[in-house]
This record gives sequence, structure tokens and C-alpha cells, in this order.
Amino acid sequence: MQFSPLIKELIDAFKILPGVGPKSAQRMAFHLLERNRQGALQLSHVLHNAMEHVKHCEQCRTFCENKLCEICANPKRQENQTLCIVESPQDMLAVEQTSEFKGRYFVLMGHLSPIDGIGPAEIGLEQLSQILENDDITEVILATNPTVEGEATAHYIAQMCKTQTIKASRIAHGVPVGGELEFIDGNTLTHAFNGRRDI
Amino acid sequence: MQFSPLIKELIDAFKILPGVGPKSAQRMAFHLLERNRQGALQLSHVLHNAMEHVKHCEQCRTFCENKLCEICANPKRQENQTLCIVESPQDMLAVEQTSEFKGRYFVLMGHLSPIDGIGPAEIGLEQLSQILENDDITEVILATNPTVEGEATAHYIAQMCKTQTIKASRIAHGVPVGGELEFIDGNTLTHAFNGRRDI
Repeated sequence: MQFSPLIKELIDAFKILPGVGPKSAQRMAFHLLERNRQGALQLSHVLHNAMEHVKHCEQCRTFCENKLCEICANPKRQENQTLCIVESPQDMLAVEQTSEFKGRYFVLMGHLSPIDGIGPAEIGLEQLSQILENDDITEVILATNPTVEGEATAHYIAQMCKTQTIKASRIAHGVPVGGELEFIDGNTLTHAFNGRRDI
Repeated sequence: MQFSPLIKELIDAFKILPGVGPKSAQRMAFHLLERNRQGALQLSHVLHNAMEHVKHCEQCRTFCENKLCEICANPKRQENQTLCIVESPQDMLAVEQTSEFKGRYFVLMGHLSPIDGIGPAEIGLEQLSQILENDDITEVILATNPTVEGEATAHYIAQMCKTQTIKASRIAHGVPVGGELEFIDGNTLTHAFNGRRDI
């Protein structure tokens, strides 16, 4: 015996979610069928809507349903001559939540990774090049992740800025605030020592 | 800044799934938006379909989209005079996967739990009573979970069988096959000793 066709289809459909295997998918399907059909219909509706209408912001490439995202549509933010480059919309939100940065963003939606076929065109560097050329940008802050790919991407973009004689800076790597030296990996500590500042 | 309204709605909608908190919901939403819009549309479609069309089998109360489930629609299974009582469709599948039991099922879709307002009517015991009365059942196997509520439910149904003079049996509790005595809890070991059989 197996579950009825519709239930099997539902369990299979849930398996596309990240971190969801056959057992979790089964649990999700039965949970909704037994206890929250209204919520499931709502999820179905919202999911359809989001997939149909969420596009990329025409200026910064983050996800949004309008032509421009909230930040790109804000004239105050656009006057600022600093451009922060991040890998994903989630990274953009993390920077925003510090309320520290008041400039514009550019979201790569990934990082350079030739082995996966992701080159400059795939992460929108042509569009970035036009922004650097036409808009009045004085500093580019490279906030890509401190991974091998993130560093390579930052290096590539720094070179682009150099040809346009725009200042490029990289966010600091070091000991996280509240972290304990004992548990920090050697690589990070080396960065923290090299990046030391006078007090 | 926050994510755009549609993305926020999508993240909130994912939070209804069991075991999914704000961070997992965000990961799911962005994973689908970035990498699998086709799969997400399919999930939306299947979810809607399942919630609209999956009902309970009219005879055994398991989930299915037809009047009768696969087992209740099978005349061979219906001729068998044994009725197995389980708490959920998942339990029914677990029993089926042993290929050991060839009779009919009755799925309670829960267990007696007066504190949550779940009485005999909520777990379909009126329907079960009619089956015991009208159909030709000679033995009822009580395969509810070995929890306090499961035991209470089994006891209640055993009493129902007694009034109809139908034999009722409870599945054995004891040491799981492949388990090691060292790691078995005392309660289970007591059951295993009390339920010992001659060899």
C-alpha cells in the first residue's frame, strides 16, 4: 500500500524545499491535511503570487515586485555617493539592520565561480560597470562573503573600480564582537592582527 | 528596510509548516525564488489540489481523494474478518509495510484526550461501533501508540468490543528487534518480562 496519489504528489512536492527529506515532507503534508487546510491554501496562493510577480530591481538587482526596490526608489539614498556590493538580498538586509550604511546597494545574486559556469555576466557586472561609469559614485564598499569565491569576486570588482579611478574598500575581517579569542580560527586571527588599528 | 511585501508574505506563509522557524522560512523562500520557480509553482498547484480534494475514506477514515481508500475498495481485504485500529494514516502505512496483516483498518485520526476536548465522537468511535455491529468482524487488533493516551484509547475500544462479544487484542510491547537490553528503558523491559512466551 502507498498513500493515495494526491498525497504522494504533495509529499514529493515538499521535497524541493531545502533541508526537507522524505520524512519531513510526509510530516508537513499530514500536518497541513489534519490541522491547517486554511493555512495551506493561503501558502499555495502566496507561493503562486510570489513566483509570478517577484522580479529583480532594475537598478540594484535585489528581489522586489516593482521596477525599483524600496531603497533604489528613495531619493535620499540615491543622493549618497557610496555603493555597497553584497552577494544576496539576505546580506543586504543584514547590512540594513545595522542602520549604519546610508548609501546605495548592488546585489550580485551570487559570486564568481567559473567551475559552476558563473562568470561576470551572470552576477550583473556589466550593469555594475555602467553604474560606475554613469552615476556619481565616489566609493565602493565590497561586502561579499569572506569565502574564496567572495574574495575573488571582491578582487575582480576592485580592479573594475581601479580602471574607473573610484575608491574601493573591503569590509574588515577580524574577531567578531563578543567572540572569545580561544575559539577563533587561525585564519581569522591572522586577519585580525594584520588589520590592527591604532587606539 | 524589510523585504518587499510579497516576499515577507511568503516567508510568513512558510512558518505554518511544522519545524520551520523564521530563518528556515526565509531560506526556503529565497531558495525557491533564486533556483526553483518551476518547482515552487508545482508545489503551489499540488498543495491547492490536495487541500481541496483529499477527504476521509468513508469506511476506515484514512485520508484519500475517493469515496473509499485502496484497502477498503479491495474485496479481498474486506472478506478478512480482522480489524486493525491505528491512530493515523502513517501508522497504517507502517503496518502495511510489514506485509504481515491482511485484514481491514480503522484509522482514529487521533486518540482520546479529554483535556484537549477529544472524546469518542472526535475519533469516530460511533462509526466504529456500527462497523462492529453490522460487519462480520471476529477480532479487533488494537495498534494504538504505547503512550498514556494510546493505552486509554485501546482500553476504551476493548470495552466496546466486549459488549459486542468480539475478541480484542493489543499488539505486544517489548524489546525492539535489534535493540540492546542495556539501552532499553525500564518500563519497556517490565512489559517485555510480563509478556514473555514459552519457547
